[in-house]
Amino acid sequence: MKLSILGCYSATPRTLNNTTSQVLEINNHMFLIDCGEGTQVQLRKHKIKFNRIKHVFISHLHGDHFFGLVGLISTFRLLTREADLHVYGPKGIKEVVTLQMKLADSWTNYNLIFHELTSKTSELIFEDEKVEVHTIPLNHRVYTNGFLFKEKEGLRKLNITAVQEANINVAYYRKLSQGFDIENEDGIIIKNETVTKPGPKPKSYAFCSDTMYKEDIIPIIQNTNVLYHESTFLEQHAHLAVKTKHATAKEAATIARKANVETLILGHYSTRYGNIETFKEEASEVFDNVELAEDGKTFEF
Amino acid sequence: MKLSILGCYSATPRTLNNTTSQVLEINNHMFLIDCGEGTQVQLRKHKIKFNRIKHVFISHLHGDHFFGLVGLISTFRLLTREADLHVYGPKGIKEVVTLQMKLADSWTNYNLIFHELTSKTSELIFEDEKVEVHTIPLNHRVYTNGFLFKEKEGLRKLNITAVQEANINVAYYRKLSQGFDIENEDGIIIKNETVTKPGPKPKSYAFCSDTMYKEDIIPIIQNTNVLYHESTFLEQHAHLAVKTKHATAKEAATIARKANVETLILGHYSTRYGNIETFKEEASEVFDNVELAEDGKTFEF
Repeated sequence: MKLSILGCYSATPRTLNNTTSQVLEINNHMFLIDCGEGTQVQLRKHKIKFNRIKHVFISHLHGDHFFGLVGLISTFRLLTREADLHVYGPKGIKEVVTLQMKLADSWTNYNLIFHELTSKTSELIFEDEKVEVHTIPLNHRVYTNGFLFKEKEGLRKLNITAVQEANINVAYYRKLSQGFDIENEDGIIIKNETVTKPGPKPKSYAFCSDTMYKEDIIPIIQNTNVLYHESTFLEQHAHLAVKTKHATAKEAATIARKANVETLILGHYSTRYGNIETFKEEASEVFDNVELAEDGKTFEF
Repeated sequence: MKLSILGCYSATPRTLNNTTSQVLEINNHMFLIDCGEGTQVQLRKHKIKFNRIKHVFISHLHGDHFFGLVGLISTFRLLTREADLHVYGPKGIKEVVTLQMKLADSWTNYNLIFHELTSKTSELIFEDEKVEVHTIPLNHRVYTNGFLFKEKEGLRKLNITAVQEANINVAYYRKLSQGFDIENEDGIIIKNETVTKPGPKPKSYAFCSDTMYKEDIIPIIQNTNVLYHESTFLEQHAHLAVKTKHATAKEAATIARKANVETLILGHYSTRYGNIETFKEEASEVFDNVELAEDGKTFEF
């Protein structure tokens, strides 16, 4: 699982700070999460192949999270993309993209499929053999979802020596890796766990931005490997966090601790603070394993 | 008159190439012309004060000329702008900006005034004491206007020695500078041109992008000081220019020559060409004074 931070600052793009966008590589998928203005250029800088992106998840319709979307869609068309593109985001996202295409008298030559979100409870919005994506309803000034990306439980690993000693027919090996108990050649039921080991532990990543402190999300993100939680402010500006429905570094850390995640990544910093290390310091008082998102930074888990 | 090129490449923003946007400084105005994605960051890089921009002119609603507009408007709001902002552009521009504001549940705290353009003939769209702006109807795949920025004829300069010798009352000096003939203290009519000289020659700038070769624009831009004319292609791809309704460097130069402009600036290059010097070489065969727009370049006239 690899996370590339294309941008992680709040409000407006600046000379050195990009607004929110990140790419999560998980089980051969390249999921684009949020798409602030300039995201397509950031993708180029990161040498991320446009065609590998087939799914875009937009948390909410504030400009710093989606003003780059229509440009990306338009550039995909100019580059004669053929692969389908799925866009998940709040209701209205289809209309705004469609209107801009109409005004430019153009449309995509690839399938552009919108999945408009309106649910106020967590829902499964994408699933294939190996990965699931669930929404995480957040509490911000407009309708906002975070996203939980979860690998599914993988196949169990066979202990070949033990399997052979147990005299199990090779035709059942697939069933064994799927966790079933098997009747061997002698008619004896072999308990699965005596001849297999668990496969690699499934990884999970939760993206929560923008949101104020919201304990309701804890059951959804419980035990997640990596949590990206916005921390627009430090505690000294907690009143602004409440007013603008954002979170502080301490609040993000509190969520991380209560949800028992392994790693917390902070981001969506207000540019009022000179040095983002102060976010880490504040969060580290509550939670041990804190990382700082930075534009251009890549995390591998 | 100062022209700052924020971006001058066609189609899509890239790591090193920005799409169309420029700032024309003329008679204390800062006119923003077109606003491709990333323009607000380019403005920051150029250290152009956001508050000095009060008028934005959008040629057409293709993304590479206007996808940065909503972000700019939104950033102006976040920075608590108070000054009015006038936006001139094709019909539809108001709806698309308004829809995005509505979806973000926000609106500007300053006056945002749209001037939607639909005329197929040149019209005066802005005028104050010193400057006029006219549209230049172009021929592109969608409704498109270029813009002609013209200083008005300035006040004439008084030859003080001659004025005093002519025995003209000081009360008439203003009339003299406005070009009127004046009756002197002895009741004799003094011809204006015998005691004044013309003021500084008014400057003019014509922006023509995007368009295919269109001779109809020549009377509108005749004798302009500086013409920016798109040259997406070289003559070797003239067939593509026709197909996509763009111009070649040679065609831009032909317009410049026929319109008798002083300086031609080329831009809106397709990124298929490695070296933009070839555009200048091609145009220089037809017209002498050719300049190349480049991102970050400033011209003073």
